[in-house]
Amino acid sequence: MTKKWVYLFSEGNKEMKNLLGGKGAGLAEMTNAGLPVPPGFTITTEACLSFFENGKQFPEGMWEQTLEALRAVEQQTGKKFGDPQNPLLVSVRSGARVSMPGMMDTVLNLGLNPETLKGLARLTGNERFAYDAYRRFIQMFGRIVKGIDPEKFERILDEYKEKTEGKKDTDLTTEMLKDIVADFKELYKRELGEEFPDDPYEQLRQAIAAVFDSWYGKRAVDYRNFHKIPHDWGTAVNVVTMVFGNMGEDSGTGVAFTRNPATGEKELYGEYLQNAQGEDVVAGIRTPKKIAELEQDMPEVYEQFVKVAEMLEKHYRDMQDMEFTVERGKLWMLQTRTGKRTAAAAVKIAVDMVHEGLITKEEALLRVDPAQINQLLLPRFDPKAVEEARRAGHFLAKGLNASPGEASGVAAFDADTAEEWGLAGKTVILVRPETAPDDVHGMLQAKGILTQRGGATSHAAVVARGLGKPCVAGCEAIHVDAEKKMFTVDGYVVKEGDVISISGTTGEVFAGAIPTIDPDFKKETNLITLLGWADEVRRLGVWTNADYPKDAARAREFGAEGIGLCRTEHMFFEEERRPIVVNMIMAETEEERQECLDKLLPFQREDFEGIFRVMDGLPVIIRLIDPPMHEFLPPREELIEEVTRLRCTGEDPEELAEKEKMLRVVESMWEVNPMLGLRGCRAGIMYKGLTEMQTRAIIEAACNVSQEGVDVHPEIMIPLVSHVNELKLEREKLEEVAKQVMAEKGIEVDYKFGTMIEVPRAALTADEIARHAQFFSFGTNDLTQMTYGISRDDAEGKFLLDYVDRGLLPFNPFQVLDRDGVGQLMKICVGKGRQVNPNMDIGICGEHGGDPSSVEFCHIIGLNYVSCSPFRVPIARLAAAQAALRHEYGRKQ
Amino acid sequence: MTKKWVYLFSEGNKEMKNLLGGKGAGLAEMTNAGLPVPPGFTITTEACLSFFENGKQFPEGMWEQTLEALRAVEQQTGKKFGDPQNPLLVSVRSGARVSMPGMMDTVLNLGLNPETLKGLARLTGNERFAYDAYRRFIQMFGRIVKGIDPEKFERILDEYKEKTEGKKDTDLTTEMLKDIVADFKELYKRELGEEFPDDPYEQLRQAIAAVFDSWYGKRAVDYRNFHKIPHDWGTAVNVVTMVFGNMGEDSGTGVAFTRNPATGEKELYGEYLQNAQGEDVVAGIRTPKKIAELEQDMPEVYEQFVKVAEMLEKHYRDMQDMEFTVERGKLWMLQTRTGKRTAAAAVKIAVDMVHEGLITKEEALLRVDPAQINQLLLPRFDPKAVEEARRAGHFLAKGLNASPGEASGVAAFDADTAEEWGLAGKTVILVRPETAPDDVHGMLQAKGILTQRGGATSHAAVVARGLGKPCVAGCEAIHVDAEKKMFTVDGYVVKEGDVISISGTTGEVFAGAIPTIDPDFKKETNLITLLGWADEVRRLGVWTNADYPKDAARAREFGAEGIGLCRTEHMFFEEERRPIVVNMIMAETEEERQECLDKLLPFQREDFEGIFRVMDGLPVIIRLIDPPMHEFLPPREELIEEVTRLRCTGEDPEELAEKEKMLRVVESMWEVNPMLGLRGCRAGIMYKGLTEMQTRAIIEAACNVSQEGVDVHPEIMIPLVSHVNELKLEREKLEEVAKQVMAEKGIEVDYKFGTMIEVPRAALTADEIARHAQFFSFGTNDLTQMTYGISRDDAEGKFLLDYVDRGLLPFNPFQVLDRDGVGQLMKICVGKGRQVNPNMDIGICGEHGGDPSSVEFCHIIGLNYVSCSPFRVPIARLAAAQAALRHEYGRKQ
Repeated sequence: MTKKWVYLFSEGNKEMKNLLGGKGAGLAEMTNAGLPVPPGFTITTEACLSFFENGKQFPEGMWEQTLEALRAVEQQTGKKFGDPQNPLLVSVRSGARVSMPGMMDTVLNLGLNPETLKGLARLTGNERFAYDAYRRFIQMFGRIVKGIDPEKFERILDEYKEKTEGKKDTDLTTEMLKDIVADFKELYKRELGEEFPDDPYEQLRQAIAAVFDSWYGKRAVDYRNFHKIPHDWGTAVNVVTMVFGNMGEDSGTGVAFTRNPATGEKELYGEYLQNAQGEDVVAGIRTPKKIAELEQDMPEVYEQFVKVAEMLEKHYRDMQDMEFTVERGKLWMLQTRTGKRTAAAAVKIAVDMVHEGLITKEEALLRVDPAQINQLLLPRFDPKAVEEARRAGHFLAKGLNASPGEASGVAAFDADTAEEWGLAGKTVILVRPETAPDDVHGMLQAKGILTQRGGATSHAAVVARGLGKPCVAGCEAIHVDAEKKMFTVDGYVVKEGDVISISGTTGEVFAGAIPTIDPDFKKETNLITLLGWADEVRRLGVWTNADYPKDAARAREFGAEGIGLCRTEHMFFEEERRPIVVNMIMAETEEERQECLDKLLPFQREDFEGIFRVMDGLPVIIRLIDPPMHEFLPPREELIEEVTRLRCTGEDPEELAEKEKMLRVVESMWEVNPMLGLRGCRAGIMYKGLTEMQTRAIIEAACNVSQEGVDVHPEIMIPLVSHVNELKLEREKLEEVAKQVMAEKGIEVDYKFGTMIEVPRAALTADEIARHAQFFSFGTNDLTQMTYGISRDDAEGKFLLDYVDRGLLPFNPFQVLDRDGVGQLMKICVGKGRQVNPNMDIGICGEHGGDPSSVEFCHIIGLNYVSCSPFRVPIARLAAAQAALRHEYGRKQ
Repeated sequence: MTKKWVYLFSEGNKEMKNLLGGKGAGLAEMTNAGLPVPPGFTITTEACLSFFENGKQFPEGMWEQTLEALRAVEQQTGKKFGDPQNPLLVSVRSGARVSMPGMMDTVLNLGLNPETLKGLARLTGNERFAYDAYRRFIQMFGRIVKGIDPEKFERILDEYKEKTEGKKDTDLTTEMLKDIVADFKELYKRELGEEFPDDPYEQLRQAIAAVFDSWYGKRAVDYRNFHKIPHDWGTAVNVVTMVFGNMGEDSGTGVAFTRNPATGEKELYGEYLQNAQGEDVVAGIRTPKKIAELEQDMPEVYEQFVKVAEMLEKHYRDMQDMEFTVERGKLWMLQTRTGKRTAAAAVKIAVDMVHEGLITKEEALLRVDPAQINQLLLPRFDPKAVEEARRAGHFLAKGLNASPGEASGVAAFDADTAEEWGLAGKTVILVRPETAPDDVHGMLQAKGILTQRGGATSHAAVVARGLGKPCVAGCEAIHVDAEKKMFTVDGYVVKEGDVISISGTTGEVFAGAIPTIDPDFKKETNLITLLGWADEVRRLGVWTNADYPKDAARAREFGAEGIGLCRTEHMFFEEERRPIVVNMIMAETEEERQECLDKLLPFQREDFEGIFRVMDGLPVIIRLIDPPMHEFLPPREELIEEVTRLRCTGEDPEELAEKEKMLRVVESMWEVNPMLGLRGCRAGIMYKGLTEMQTRAIIEAACNVSQEGVDVHPEIMIPLVSHVNELKLEREKLEEVAKQVMAEKGIEVDYKFGTMIEVPRAALTADEIARHAQFFSFGTNDLTQMTYGISRDDAEGKFLLDYVDRGLLPFNPFQVLDRDGVGQLMKICVGKGRQVNPNMDIGICGEHGGDPSSVEFCHIIGLNYVSCSPFRVPIARLAAAQAALRHEYGRKQ
């Protein structure tokens, strides 16, 4: 028996998406729900796959079944395909499981030829309409099925329009349309070397084959690669009886949403055009009317449509995006699908629907894309103002949308100026060729950051995301001249002090100011409700990465339950501390070094006190010094240049001597691969007194705030452990310090020692390491670098983004956790660590902690919490809830 | 019941080493074999451990058992401990499972006091002898048990010796010895604030406690840390009846080996001193006689000793190192143990003993330390000449023994000079602050390499080992001034052209020439025999890493069964090719680049042809380009310096423009962490035409030599794969090239494509990767770097060697494969790879391939072969055989 390749709409339902595609399943569902759907049928995705397996031949029986279905449609409509008397016309549309812009769209009016054309004219009593339909068909068939450049058809059309008074297509006369049809056919023949097919069955056969073919079209393949859609899904083909919205003022066509997709308000929202076909809405030739006006224009149709909309929303239990056509006062539903919506709308609709009893809380949680809600938490441009700026030609360039949010401010080209101006109350955008730890003090005071070089995990991007500040990185179109304090882009010059606007959400850069809307989390009541439900179901804790009290406070407002990563080195870069740090590194004796450390101690203590107060009652993980020490000194190249210059000019012997000394130190510390060099716990082990000072500062601070009544839980994290002995040695040394400080203060505080798992070897030997750690925290940034052997500082611009573009990598592993590689190490680590230490807390503090897919993975492998930048805390709360709804927690591997 | 803490010699045997220590077990074994051993007993290692557990108290019953054993010894000897009439004197010695120089040695003559002294004098009829024994006892007890500075005793002794005519200790009169005893006792009291103990039992108790204590002495702990001896073994204490070799001309003491430990000749080998105690031999005061002379001096004793020696060798089935004493014509055996020997002797003895039927071939294979046989294959200094050089004060400094072998030659301070002189026939030592790929052409022509900086896996070390050339690296005591072409060390200056000698085996550097002995593998018949046996039992193949035909030929002579790693980038650095490579990198158009590639093609093809001819019949794995492209350009710092200088002086605008252009390119390619940057297959993917050219060269070369009748098996290795798609893409591209070349040539060659496993992620996803690879080869250098997060270029000097020194790491993971971390990844990889592709060849080509412990691990996890530098091939053959004898192959994990 031959396979069933073709389904009448009455034979399908919404569950059959895989076989019938999204569109086919929707049309079937509506048909069976008794809604007015033009009769039609769907050729399955399996037929598409067979088509390719058979060397682009229709599978056995498919064409026969198609003809059979066509007979059924003829019966339902009383029309006949190819019949000059009462011709059945159809539209042919592709329809994969998910909507895919890369594929063939619709061919309308198929079935027309010189004979049926006459029938249509006679039946409608409108010859002009018939010829217009015919020229549209030829145009679409030529363009979509045969790939003829659409410009060529447009040019012919324009010629004729020029001859009319109104110069619009509605001004074309019937005679003109006849000539156009002739010209189009000639064009078709010229382009393809064959006549335009008159046989409706031939038209249908070619259109179906073209839909199948479009599955492997370049754009479709690229789209699937980009969106990770498997290539073996195939597309279905929908053949639908034509209904005409352009048969007069009692006809029309439109699209509508069951709720407002921008705000989520419960109201029918959409637009329609009278006397028009669907493509006219898209083409934007006439301005469509609001859907509400349909009530005046055709009250009965409107009433029916409102009912259909309500029914569909109830039926699908989600906001629907519908296409419809009115043919001579009769409503036809052409499509329904779940509607896309803004973040605000998504949240409001989900929460409202729970209150309406339409969906459960769990369903509501699954309805909102966690990544999207970021939009609700960041300052954003007024959309109207953006449009104006664009129209006024203020758009300058587009870079990488490295850290979301939008900001306007005066351009500053060095960190010192940015800091100075920022502290003076100006809103500043820091513009740099690229940033370095050196620039952090400026970034702290800037409202946004723009860099010419660097990828999504460049220093600028990482710090900006940490600070929750907008950042456009790797904006290669601009040329930053830091010395001259300006940048140019296509001849346009932006100087220090000029106002610019950047969107870290889109990556766009504008000249001049664009007003922003400042969100207020407290007012996001729907979001707060939704996140409350999320907290009820999630198993993962959500902590935050915060280095400053201000960030910690914000994260708490967003629901953070602890600090998972407080970096201590940023503190070293602050202005009054930096010289002390430099002196410490340059110290020639133990005493000199200890003196510097003694000077740093009160600063560090103060930092921690501030954070502990904000996090009263919650755990705070503080990571001991991590970067290589030479990062605190001037760059080697800069010193070489200065020393060479000073030697050459003989200008300033004192300065020269000083720089030479500095260069000697820098050279002696210089590393070929600093990421894999003397940093992390290695620095703690090799530089006497450094981590002792930090531990003393932490415990002193804890004791001090504890006396103020603050409930304090410091957890000291030793970074970059690769061998258990490193951890053991550091911990033993620092436990001594902690005990000594508590003895001095006469206060006991609840502290822990743990380690970051960021070196593959640490994950692999987690059983040994767990014997000496009270907690683990995955540093997935470094773990990803080492597991892939990819330096993120170097790779993104040089090959990584290119890899993702070419589909070589499914995604950027610095954004989405690589489950197969890095994730495998994490699973090994969790298994081995818990084997030795079943109750230990294991979390993640790499940037992946705020990425929904990565959060899901953390849930699956049974971590205790994720820690992410403050603005990502709500995302993580929702993502964690979704993970809990979808997957078992801590699934055994 | 109390535990048995004390064993009489008659109660033990050689199997009880763990309980009785090596010495105790040996004495027991000899006693039970009926050999003349002075009666005595052993206090167990368990007693030692209990002693520490009890807060340094003897465990219950131990002292009582000691006294009981002493009674038994009294019975056997007819003497009594502390009896003035017929005093029993004993020696007390430590004795752990293995010989440990860090621990307490021997206290002789214990039991002497003013009373027993008289008895001894009376019994021996020799008052002088008795007082001499007493002063020795006080001296040893004070020094060894109580830790008094030995110099202080020596000073007193010297004062008296000065008063005699001969100024030797034998010239001291009885009266003098009496005064010395008094002075010694006074010194003892002054130093310790207590009287020297007269009670023999107190002496014994303190000596035993001192032996126990010495187990945790600093030197012993350091020694154990260094040699990876567990701290929980403890030491035994041996209490042995004193016999005296210094009771006249019919007495004596000596040490002897059953075979010559330097050559392996089967002859009694050793020396003895008449009328002396053991310590006199050590002190070197008198020149000892050859053991053969004992035959004249005491024929009966000699005859007896020869028999004992034969018996012991047969009994232990290995060459023995024996200590003996003759007391008034009676032979006493004091110790026997397996004797240390040179590499040559080890090999000869093992082979001879098989021929003698004493041991099996398998035992012979286990008798030779694989690491040792390197000595037999490398040019080495004449030992006498080294002694002379040392005496003449020619020793200059000691660095890291980075690549074994020894060489003399004229110092050259840059690669060009080294190359020029080398080609002109001079023997050259290349001296550099450190080396870079830039220097390889000089290293190729140099006889040896000396660097001021860099560790055991620095560039210099790695390349030198690959080339089998001696290298002393990281010799920080010398200051190399490359510009002035000289180095200084403690004020001594070595200029270009001066002759120096370096030992890569010991790390020593000498001024002037030291003549070397050149080994000839063909003449090492014993080694060849042994390695033949090794080949019969080993499961691992042994391949070699060789980039040049010359190296490949040598490796074949040493038994290599294939090339596991032929690096192609060294070829790019050769003089005539370098400019083409630079032009290729600087090319601004595709055409320019392709032109350069076309020029490189014939060079590469020739290289491969040469290697294929040498490896006729064996597989050759060729790794495609691996290092980052910028390594072929001048260093960034150098360019910055030059550009700054040229800008400053305005000297040479043309030169400036050129350098500026070069700097721009270098800057654009510059990477923060080049090891994790755009290299390996990433370069193949991003630089169009590069790996295509290399593949073309390989297959063209294979076709060409195949036409000459050479049996050629090229295997193309794609490096640095982290994701399967990289391999898939490169392989598909290069398979096309291979097929095209074969079609052009009309010849089929047997080629394979495989990948290096050197990135953790590749190991973790080996199942996916195995689908696209025909072989795997572990690049354990990079795999270790990434698994540990340690850059070898940076780490060794900065912290890694320090880590090993401090016992933080058990060994340098770049020398000995880290089984727990890196090895775990390898096991995962082998498991997953073989699951998909059960018959695939998996080998190792990292430097670990020549390290015996690492070879053993490769056997355990079931690799197919190890590949190492040519000179390590024999080591690997033996190590592989030992692994096969000790461990199951490919043990399931």
